[in-house]
Amino acid sequence: MSAMSPPAEVPSMLPVAVDAMGGDRAPAEIVRGARQAAEELGIPVLLVGDPERMGDTGDLPVRPATEVIAMDEDPAQSVRRKKDSSLVRAAEAVRDGQASAMVSAGNTGAAMASALFRMGRLPGVARPAIATPIPVPGATPTVLLDAGANAECSATWLVQFAQMGSAFSRERYGLAEPRVGLLSIGEEETKGNSLVKETHALLAAGAAGPAVHFIGNVEGRDVMSDAVDVVVTDGFTGNVTLKALEGGLRFMVAAVLAALTGSPEVEAASAVILPALAPLAAELDPDTYGGAMLLGVDGVCIISHGSSSARAIVNAVRAARDAVEHDLVGQLRDAVTRIDQLG
Amino acid sequence: MSAMSPPAEVPSMLPVAVDAMGGDRAPAEIVRGARQAAEELGIPVLLVGDPERMGDTGDLPVRPATEVIAMDEDPAQSVRRKKDSSLVRAAEAVRDGQASAMVSAGNTGAAMASALFRMGRLPGVARPAIATPIPVPGATPTVLLDAGANAECSATWLVQFAQMGSAFSRERYGLAEPRVGLLSIGEEETKGNSLVKETHALLAAGAAGPAVHFIGNVEGRDVMSDAVDVVVTDGFTGNVTLKALEGGLRFMVAAVLAALTGSPEVEAASAVILPALAPLAAELDPDTYGGAMLLGVDGVCIISHGSSSARAIVNAVRAARDAVEHDLVGQLRDAVTRIDQLG
Repeated sequence: MSAMSPPAEVPSMLPVAVDAMGGDRAPAEIVRGARQAAEELGIPVLLVGDPERMGDTGDLPVRPATEVIAMDEDPAQSVRRKKDSSLVRAAEAVRDGQASAMVSAGNTGAAMASALFRMGRLPGVARPAIATPIPVPGATPTVLLDAGANAECSATWLVQFAQMGSAFSRERYGLAEPRVGLLSIGEEETKGNSLVKETHALLAAGAAGPAVHFIGNVEGRDVMSDAVDVVVTDGFTGNVTLKALEGGLRFMVAAVLAALTGSPEVEAASAVILPALAPLAAELDPDTYGGAMLLGVDGVCIISHGSSSARAIVNAVRAARDAVEHDLVGQLRDAVTRIDQLG
Repeated sequence: MSAMSPPAEVPSMLPVAVDAMGGDRAPAEIVRGARQAAEELGIPVLLVGDPERMGDTGDLPVRPATEVIAMDEDPAQSVRRKKDSSLVRAAEAVRDGQASAMVSAGNTGAAMASALFRMGRLPGVARPAIATPIPVPGATPTVLLDAGANAECSATWLVQFAQMGSAFSRERYGLAEPRVGLLSIGEEETKGNSLVKETHALLAAGAAGPAVHFIGNVEGRDVMSDAVDVVVTDGFTGNVTLKALEGGLRFMVAAVLAALTGSPEVEAASAVILPALAPLAAELDPDTYGGAMLLGVDGVCIISHGSSSARAIVNAVRAARDAVEHDLVGQLRDAVTRIDQLG
């Protein structure tokens, strides 16, 4: 089923569990976003966190959790120790059938570890990967994966990332045949490091199966373009690329705004210009995208960025709902080939 | 000697050898840029290429070379086979004491191979690296290396890149103590892939020596910022990062310009705004930076980007002249520790 077709009937959807304590602006902005999602979109939400610190939660149900995993804590260690943390309890709510999905703007590594330890992996998946949508104004976002879950990868993992990324792009953006590219330093198959060359050979030989439309190597400049729909890479390169783009765009926006305050004449003209740029700014705003999704775990886990506003949480809850309604996890389960059957 | 101090006396500087046949716009734009550099900056230039195809070379001396290495040819193979190519002859001119430096906008891999095979490596250098200045409007450029010479690297090579990048930043931008960062996916020393962790341990233990001011790991978002002066990474990650930034900025500029043609009112305001943005655009234009430098070979080799205009060539020739006058190669020779003495 593609995102273009009507969603499956979910007469009484389980709530989306929102980690109220995760993120730089938690809990106030997170709770505000959760309430907006429930009120404006009619999506059932379960808040997970410390009731004494959450403020006014309105009509939302609360799953109490006394502990909080800080943004800079060691992921695996904190998840093991803080069994009553909001992150761990949110993942447990999905595992135990009390929630259909989890959303967190907290410690990314800990969110991954919580989802992995509590929900478990999908059958055959070697490693979950973070799929991050990169905005491409005027076109569907490019899905970059792995954006940081695995600093070191093998070629067969990357083949699975191609399978999962392709299914994700198909379901989330309604693309019939997403173009899957392998991130490298030249288009020729001889270009790249040994991991990329090995992965290229597997993908070119069809190891990912007929559902994956492999278009070959792509370069850094293609990530933020309409030349490719899914960019496959290891989590080190993916994270560096993502953050370089974020930093470059933020820098550029700041430099443009600084240049527009030079003189009264320029400032007057800016007042006319800036509204015309607003749609572009909205398209580039990470809050628009509802966060990244952890692909390969047995449940929906949406990871929103650390500085998430209420609006980012609304969009993350919406993305979680869409993933549940389209049975994205089921699609991913079907998309993945077991490692020992690859290549 | 720093770039702030007066240059060494070079009473009769040897000419800068310019590969007239390399680049998407060769030979016309290249010859035009070479002539401008000679006429406007008084820098002696030697054109290398096919006299029959170069057009009007003015008063410039020409070193004839009958062959041309195309942009997409295999680097090592083409350099071995095309012994009378403009690229190989330019590198030979430096080796043979007929030129003080070489400049090419041609096939980057072939330029590297020509320089490496003809000039040789500096003593103790394991691998040359491409050092690319990343524009940071309002601050000195960040030097990114390796930007693509070595797809696979060892930790000791990266330590040498830190030494060479630091010396380059000091000499070219006059920074007394350039801040050297290691590109990773988190600031903590435990973050990154195994190459980065091993390199971090070496640099933190002072393996690069007292001349290198190591500030720890930096992230993708720091590359285009004033948080760091030299970013050390392997050539795969460096090339992907560089091209992602280039692509993101180009995309952003195109999207902004498209948004500014929406209505007559907006277009009128744009006419006021665009001149205010011109200095920023110039700072971000790669033609401004005179190209990348291949560090670690026994001679000055400046690699300008493939789409170089005459202006890019003028700036590349200027960068070559500065490198010669400040004896940058001598500084690099002194900066490098032999691999077997590292760590």
